[in-house]
Amino acid sequence: MNVKDKSIEELEALCADIREEILKVVSKNGGHLSSTLGATELIVAMHKVFDSKKDPFIFDVSHQSYAHKLLTGRWEEFHTLRTFGGISGYTKPSESADDYFVAGHSSTSISLGVGAAKAIALKNEQDKRVPVIMIGDGSMTAGMVYEALNELGDRKYPMVIILNDNEMSIAKPIGAVSRMLSSAMASPFYQRFKKHTENFVDNFGDGARYIAKRMEESLKLVTPGIMFEEMGIDYIGPVDGHNLAQLIDIFQTAKNLKKPVIIHAQTLKGKGYEIAEGQEEKWHGVGPFDIDSGNSAKKSSAKSATQIYTEALMNLADKDEKVVGMTAAMPSGTGLSPLMEKYPERFWDVAIAEQHAVTSASALAKEGFKPFCTIYSTFLQRAYDQVIHDTCLMDLPVVFALDRAGIVGEDGETHQGVFDVSYLRAIPNMTLLAPRDEKSFHQAMGFAHEYRHPCTIRYPRGSFMLCDTLAESQPFELGKSQLVQSSNSDVLFIGYGNGVGRAAQTAALLQEDVAVLDLRFVKPLDEEMLRTLAQKHKKWFVFSESAKMGGVGSAIQEFLAQESLDDVKVVSFEYEDKFITHGNTKLVEESLGLLPEQLVKKVNRLLS
Amino acid sequence: MNVKDKSIEELEALCADIREEILKVVSKNGGHLSSTLGATELIVAMHKVFDSKKDPFIFDVSHQSYAHKLLTGRWEEFHTLRTFGGISGYTKPSESADDYFVAGHSSTSISLGVGAAKAIALKNEQDKRVPVIMIGDGSMTAGMVYEALNELGDRKYPMVIILNDNEMSIAKPIGAVSRMLSSAMASPFYQRFKKHTENFVDNFGDGARYIAKRMEESLKLVTPGIMFEEMGIDYIGPVDGHNLAQLIDIFQTAKNLKKPVIIHAQTLKGKGYEIAEGQEEKWHGVGPFDIDSGNSAKKSSAKSATQIYTEALMNLADKDEKVVGMTAAMPSGTGLSPLMEKYPERFWDVAIAEQHAVTSASALAKEGFKPFCTIYSTFLQRAYDQVIHDTCLMDLPVVFALDRAGIVGEDGETHQGVFDVSYLRAIPNMTLLAPRDEKSFHQAMGFAHEYRHPCTIRYPRGSFMLCDTLAESQPFELGKSQLVQSSNSDVLFIGYGNGVGRAAQTAALLQEDVAVLDLRFVKPLDEEMLRTLAQKHKKWFVFSESAKMGGVGSAIQEFLAQESLDDVKVVSFEYEDKFITHGNTKLVEESLGLLPEQLVKKVNRLLS
Repeated sequence: MNVKDKSIEELEALCADIREEILKVVSKNGGHLSSTLGATELIVAMHKVFDSKKDPFIFDVSHQSYAHKLLTGRWEEFHTLRTFGGISGYTKPSESADDYFVAGHSSTSISLGVGAAKAIALKNEQDKRVPVIMIGDGSMTAGMVYEALNELGDRKYPMVIILNDNEMSIAKPIGAVSRMLSSAMASPFYQRFKKHTENFVDNFGDGARYIAKRMEESLKLVTPGIMFEEMGIDYIGPVDGHNLAQLIDIFQTAKNLKKPVIIHAQTLKGKGYEIAEGQEEKWHGVGPFDIDSGNSAKKSSAKSATQIYTEALMNLADKDEKVVGMTAAMPSGTGLSPLMEKYPERFWDVAIAEQHAVTSASALAKEGFKPFCTIYSTFLQRAYDQVIHDTCLMDLPVVFALDRAGIVGEDGETHQGVFDVSYLRAIPNMTLLAPRDEKSFHQAMGFAHEYRHPCTIRYPRGSFMLCDTLAESQPFELGKSQLVQSSNSDVLFIGYGNGVGRAAQTAALLQEDVAVLDLRFVKPLDEEMLRTLAQKHKKWFVFSESAKMGGVGSAIQEFLAQESLDDVKVVSFEYEDKFITHGNTKLVEESLGLLPEQLVKKVNRLLS
Repeated sequence: MNVKDKSIEELEALCADIREEILKVVSKNGGHLSSTLGATELIVAMHKVFDSKKDPFIFDVSHQSYAHKLLTGRWEEFHTLRTFGGISGYTKPSESADDYFVAGHSSTSISLGVGAAKAIALKNEQDKRVPVIMIGDGSMTAGMVYEALNELGDRKYPMVIILNDNEMSIAKPIGAVSRMLSSAMASPFYQRFKKHTENFVDNFGDGARYIAKRMEESLKLVTPGIMFEEMGIDYIGPVDGHNLAQLIDIFQTAKNLKKPVIIHAQTLKGKGYEIAEGQEEKWHGVGPFDIDSGNSAKKSSAKSATQIYTEALMNLADKDEKVVGMTAAMPSGTGLSPLMEKYPERFWDVAIAEQHAVTSASALAKEGFKPFCTIYSTFLQRAYDQVIHDTCLMDLPVVFALDRAGIVGEDGETHQGVFDVSYLRAIPNMTLLAPRDEKSFHQAMGFAHEYRHPCTIRYPRGSFMLCDTLAESQPFELGKSQLVQSSNSDVLFIGYGNGVGRAAQTAALLQEDVAVLDLRFVKPLDEEMLRTLAQKHKKWFVFSESAKMGGVGSAIQEFLAQESLDDVKVVSFEYEDKFITHGNTKLVEESLGLLPEQLVKKVNRLLS
């Protein structure tokens, strides 16, 4: 699609077409709706002024990038958005050379831009190429943005940063920076004041002229751009992010500046789809829905793990006023909204700032509180050092509640919650546990609440796999597993978390009876139980929704080696050493051979 | 030591005593000298105005905290500073209740303060307690500081933040924030300008009064505090950080404000020890030295791994202009200073900002450069998500050069480089390798330079353990180990990195001959070699300076399980699941039973 030759009117019509296509596809496939609708004109203007074949187009988080995909040769395939084998919901260089980088975690864009700008400078290509970045206001709270701005302001690389400010990010934006951005009313004041200044100057000659100049410089203070200017980055704004003609002018100006410049564009989330316009978290990431009513297309009947978490946390918060819940900009996604409503003073949304979340939770714990630091598995990666250095080294009773542990479905590669067992297991003082169903989740939460050391509970996106053929869950005790199905067979299935359901369903398909162990704790392991079971069962199969390297199977192998239990053979059905693609979770699991009906064949083959 | 009752004169005398004691002990034991000497008056004033028995005293990085230790019951033991079993070089609650938190990594202090302040608010103790934070200007570049300031400015918790600005942090401070902080000359201008304003007001009645008021507000722009004020945090400064009487007044004022306030104190690093005064990186962390001359007490004869790294990197930089070196505020510590001198345009110090370092390195690699991202093992923990999401998911040829991998000696718990194998091994597309001596380090660097995917090279603090009884190192090939000593014995020693030297020295002490394998790559493993060796040797011992959980032994056990090589027994001499204390590396290793003369006994016992 050649945007360059089109008139403003044609581009406006194009924006309408883009919105229609996005709405049509997202209502069918689910996806990120409101941010992407709001960014349509910005993206069309980007393509009018810049060239994604040579200028690095960098979309922060990149859930806003649908219009960019439509404009870069993916209109025909766009109906496959987020489906298995289809177009990714994020930018992805392997999908198109117009996508500069992968992005699914927030706030990496300016660092990428600085890296690209360094390269452009070294290659002497500053006349030909400039990094163009689009970043939402919500992404501005994460620390790495400041790390990057700090270097950028110092080095002054040419770069165009489009700040897409819809004043809502994922949840309501939080913190001083967000307040600063929204004080756009300052701008008319600035204009009025400038006029006054000019009058002064006319009346007072040189001395006053000097003062007036300082005054004018000083006045940048009252515009929202002061912080950026102070860091050495030019600021333009705020501008109307839906006025195409104006955007194109401004982008062209910014391009010509050959300096780092931030364009502060104000947009309306959901623009063009009335039901979603200006709505907050609800329309950020959505499942399939009916376009006319805005109603969700289907409701899942089974209770999600997140819902169970919420119930368990609320129970604990009711009976213990030391319980606090923390989230990094995901109050609804993590199930903390009810806590926010009922106990606002014990609810903390620290914005997209996982590092700060973990470290301040550690201080809360030191002061005698019981923080439940509720973060998606993939996002806790952002705070790995803080978990080690601030929580575990101090041996403080912070609970890390890791939602979306395992395969997350349509969000794909960037969001898979697969590494947590491997990276957390190596940390001294850390305890790792996982529930397998509703009852055990409540029990795990009860354990975590009482426990006086760091611990992590992981649970899947959506609902647990059914495991009701097994014995009912018993209360959690540190380092104790539960044998949920015994058998005289040589075979033992070991499940961890949602892996117990997978083990149960696989076992149900087997010809022979097998024993099933709900491991519950991958750290510390139930050594006594494992030792006992090693006497009876010599063929162990491990089921866990985690990376194989350093994962649950690995922990068990370490134990067996340590105990010289050489006659036990362990096969682990964890994830192999590859990034896992997006799509419906069942289809993705099928592609990995991890559905119970596939696993049963593998087991049979290995047993025969 | 009761500081509260002392007069200013007595406190000044006390400062002199403190400096003398610190100089005496650090010249003997090594330690952080210049920052701690510079902070003496600040710390004495903190104790005069606040009370570490109830107010959380939070020292960022906490290498500035020696004076605090001396003032809180540790004068007598202070001569044991940083020695095995002695006083830690950092704050440590298990050492004293006056130490609120562990800190050895930078920039956690404000988050800790915010957490403590939340707790104080919840407990209704705001009348009785206030967090007091000391943070250096160098720590202000790391993103988590902004995450914390962002929440603080929004919540307005009472908090006193002492910004100890000596304009040098570890290396020369970098970036826009540092420039802003050092524009203290702005202050007299502000005063002059304020006077002008008053004249205007006198001449022009109400309209002008309004404008003048705005003007005065605006003028905060030219003070270094603007950014903080803009975030909603009161700013006082700059003040003379060596003027005790003034500091005490200001701290008292700040305490009474009951708001978040930053006191910007300017200090001279090394104050009171002329040779170190105002010196940059050299006197930051030092080994033992002669007080009169300032000369280092002893020179190590063996070449350090860092020195070898520098030589290898310079060779590569000489012959390939795509080679760039990156550091996060450690140009000298990581050995990048010669690169900075010779190829300044291919040297990047991004300040304390590991996240930004890794992500911008990824963009550089995408643009065809070969970044050597040189970071201590313990500090790469700060950028774990970026390694996954920006480097490995994109499969880009960034080299992570991890200095200080293994036990680091006197810095202790917070700095041990023990987790990297565990946390990096789980990441798809990552390759992990390690040299064992000077020659192999050059060869490993040659491999990394050619390699087109992410890879990590780890190497120890100080020099490699001698392993010259073994066959000479051969060039590195992906996933290939080298059998450096063959034997018909049943026993195989497997070394990784500096573990090869430990294996060699242990082997030399054994009665019988054993085979020794230099593993070289823990990912991917040399499966062919291991399979072959499994036929001949059934007793394997693993030597690596890494955590056992998920570490090198674990990788080998995973392989053996996968191959059903059930008759091979593996024992790993990696680090057990405990944080490792500070002190002379040999003494620490002895306490862990990891010296060759101890290991040989363990091996003999296991073989008998």
